[in-house]
Amino acid sequence: MDGNGNKTLDKIFYPDSVAIVGASNNKGKFGYMYTESFVNIGHRNIFPINPKEKEVMGFKAYPSVKDVPEDVDLALLVIPPEFAPEVVKECVEKGVKGVILYTSGFRELGEEGRKKEEELVAIAKGTGTRLIGPNCMGIYNAAGKVSFSPTMPKETGPIGMISHSGSMCNMLTNLAGARGMKFSKVVSCGNECDLNWADFLEYMAQDPETGVVIGYLEGTRNGRRFLDVARETTLRKPVIVWKAGFTERGARAASSHTGAMAGSARVWDAVFKQSGLIQVKSAEELIDLLMAFYYLPSLPKGRRVVIVSGPGGPAVTASDSCTEMGLTLAELSQETRAKLGQVIPAVGTSTDNPVDLGMGIRFNPHYYGEALKILEADGEVDIILVIGGGNPRINSILAEARKEMTKPVLAAVTMMADVPREDIQFMIEAGIPPLPDARRAAAVFAKLCNYVDYLRKRGAYDQIENWRGCGLGGGTSI
Amino acid sequence: MDGNGNKTLDKIFYPDSVAIVGASNNKGKFGYMYTESFVNIGHRNIFPINPKEKEVMGFKAYPSVKDVPEDVDLALLVIPPEFAPEVVKECVEKGVKGVILYTSGFRELGEEGRKKEEELVAIAKGTGTRLIGPNCMGIYNAAGKVSFSPTMPKETGPIGMISHSGSMCNMLTNLAGARGMKFSKVVSCGNECDLNWADFLEYMAQDPETGVVIGYLEGTRNGRRFLDVARETTLRKPVIVWKAGFTERGARAASSHTGAMAGSARVWDAVFKQSGLIQVKSAEELIDLLMAFYYLPSLPKGRRVVIVSGPGGPAVTASDSCTEMGLTLAELSQETRAKLGQVIPAVGTSTDNPVDLGMGIRFNPHYYGEALKILEADGEVDIILVIGGGNPRINSILAEARKEMTKPVLAAVTMMADVPREDIQFMIEAGIPPLPDARRAAAVFAKLCNYVDYLRKRGAYDQIENWRGCGLGGGTSI
Repeated sequence: MDGNGNKTLDKIFYPDSVAIVGASNNKGKFGYMYTESFVNIGHRNIFPINPKEKEVMGFKAYPSVKDVPEDVDLALLVIPPEFAPEVVKECVEKGVKGVILYTSGFRELGEEGRKKEEELVAIAKGTGTRLIGPNCMGIYNAAGKVSFSPTMPKETGPIGMISHSGSMCNMLTNLAGARGMKFSKVVSCGNECDLNWADFLEYMAQDPETGVVIGYLEGTRNGRRFLDVARETTLRKPVIVWKAGFTERGARAASSHTGAMAGSARVWDAVFKQSGLIQVKSAEELIDLLMAFYYLPSLPKGRRVVIVSGPGGPAVTASDSCTEMGLTLAELSQETRAKLGQVIPAVGTSTDNPVDLGMGIRFNPHYYGEALKILEADGEVDIILVIGGGNPRINSILAEARKEMTKPVLAAVTMMADVPREDIQFMIEAGIPPLPDARRAAAVFAKLCNYVDYLRKRGAYDQIENWRGCGLGGGTSI
Repeated sequence: MDGNGNKTLDKIFYPDSVAIVGASNNKGKFGYMYTESFVNIGHRNIFPINPKEKEVMGFKAYPSVKDVPEDVDLALLVIPPEFAPEVVKECVEKGVKGVILYTSGFRELGEEGRKKEEELVAIAKGTGTRLIGPNCMGIYNAAGKVSFSPTMPKETGPIGMISHSGSMCNMLTNLAGARGMKFSKVVSCGNECDLNWADFLEYMAQDPETGVVIGYLEGTRNGRRFLDVARETTLRKPVIVWKAGFTERGARAASSHTGAMAGSARVWDAVFKQSGLIQVKSAEELIDLLMAFYYLPSLPKGRRVVIVSGPGGPAVTASDSCTEMGLTLAELSQETRAKLGQVIPAVGTSTDNPVDLGMGIRFNPHYYGEALKILEADGEVDIILVIGGGNPRINSILAEARKEMTKPVLAAVTMMADVPREDIQFMIEAGIPPLPDARRAAAVFAKLCNYVDYLRKRGAYDQIENWRGCGLGGGTSI
């Protein structure tokens, strides 16, 4: 990005005026959907561009961007690809700051498309006009009244998202939203002929509204810059990346999706290792980890986990999962074991880790709270995995104990699908985010620990100490 | 098991009379819970044994098993361990067929406990009385009016379960029940001092009510017999096993849970490979796979998968997941691609695999149905992974297309947590079981393919051809 990068991007994320080229009154058209998106998010300075319409959704329409009677910060192109060069040229002449090309039919189609795309780049190059896309959904930023879907929320939060896929933006914002997590800015950058993934990451690194970044990535055409920006950003805020195209067929699909060069798995392994980017391989894994950064009030100071469980099998299998994911089962001190022994019965329980509270929790759920307090005090323990919770009685006990605690706690709530949303919300607000499977909780803890180790290696001790959960209202950046 | 093994086990699973030693009117006691369990499941011939009670829940109480005025098939011991030897002796003298020892405090406590357990074994050995446990929940068999929890359902289904952990029985029956899946028989066998995991597996192999077996396993003390029974059973019905204790700490936890010797991961890898047992490592993975065996109307004939998706990222990442799990992305025939090209638009879509139906599905969801029909006809395709569905409109289209199809189809429904239960049920009944994540669907398909390969290797072609989904009412055994 040039020196004016941030100022230009500010105008794109917070445009005073928006032109929608291809705006339509036909509800079956994307030109309608985009207009509706801007209307719903609350933008009031919309200029529909369509020579065949007098007005669209109550806004006066113009035949061309050049006919708009005032400055245009952002233009959205919802037109066939053959018209794109001319309209981009008009946008340049008009001094538009950013052009989002929803329009597809370029690099993702192969060589001929790539040439057409380069034409667009040539038109805008060196002017003050930057291109986003083509073949993208564009930008969502509720604070700037920009959106790519009529159903995006008006409430903002600390998550920034960058994606080569518009569908992933919809999917992940929906999944996060279902868990009460909100977004600062979302960018679908498609073929990224001009502004690219790394440019947006750099912007989000500096964005005070963004406390954590999630990304869907198909590839990069400038590995060096990508790595530099990533290394810079991960020192300031966690960046979770779902990289696609690791397999031959995945890479082929990525290429026909956004014309991306996916790169080899070996190279990307090194990138993840050096950059501190946190890798995930599914939507579930991404959302699980995001929940932890969003709702956990502290980062793990080490990887010594203690499991607190009802009886038997779930405790045993959780031990396997924690070890397999790369955590260490804490060796509890004799003092801790003695204290636990004073709380729980001697038979059908265990004061060894995994701490098995026995069948008695059915009648004495307060064992959970007592155990948490005791384990918080043990210097051998860094993190706590509770197997249980979900019902209001145990939730209250966990929440009460949690108040006095600083160590990160996750709960594995097996029947989570059946737990009413208000009880899930209660656990989240109490600082004990629930996951539906102990193995998934172990995977989250392991990734948090890896990130902490990375920060430590780079000397970023303050970031570890000062982390307060980006969704907990304790500041938006670490 | 001896020659009378099955007849004895029949009396244990279908007892005409049940004695509950330690039955209690105190709602805070497990002696109450067990009595309530038998009452709720509909047993009418219950004999509470408790010298301090005149009656329990309306049933006349007796001071000892020996005082019961008729034969006792099954006795349940909910008493402290020090009383167990004497009561077991009384049961032997009474001619009780099976004694379930809920009572714990034996082998799981170490050497001294092991000796106490061997005393029990010595008392029953060679008599007609078999022991289940100690340190177990016992048996659930709604058809035989036996249960270990007051909330177990009265409806039966084709799933058999064997578990070293009672908690796992509760957890997995609850998880399965939430997806409409029902059980034939569930056994929690604890320390298995006499009747063991393999004995119950042998019983379930022959049980016509059981079409699929799931198991939680901490170890075995007779590897040869375990392997023999497993190899015999997996030829008749699928057996999904969650083995615990693979890590040092998991093994330690298993030992203090049921006194199990977990065995090395290397040995168990070989057991899984030779036996056809299907290995899973979490509750989620187990339930996902169980759903497929329960609800899919056919097994995969090969591992060539086609992905049918809305636009972009989800299709690309699903390609990665399928490959990483060990599936092969089908190379679609030219004819198939031409036919797809006649249905979906040329731009922003792909007729290559993953088949990308494009943004157009928003307005033209029938693309899904057309694509399914075309792909069913392609000889290069064995299995189909749909990314999408969940809402009634797309569900109906998928269901309509499914009617004419024989290939297995799974759907990845990202926002599944928000899909109303009736819509999930609709998909299931339509033969398109939904999973919340494409990677999980890919994992399920891969495990199904591995099982089919195993059956093929052992010449069990009929089992592959005749499989109809054990939960679909098409017979309970393959």
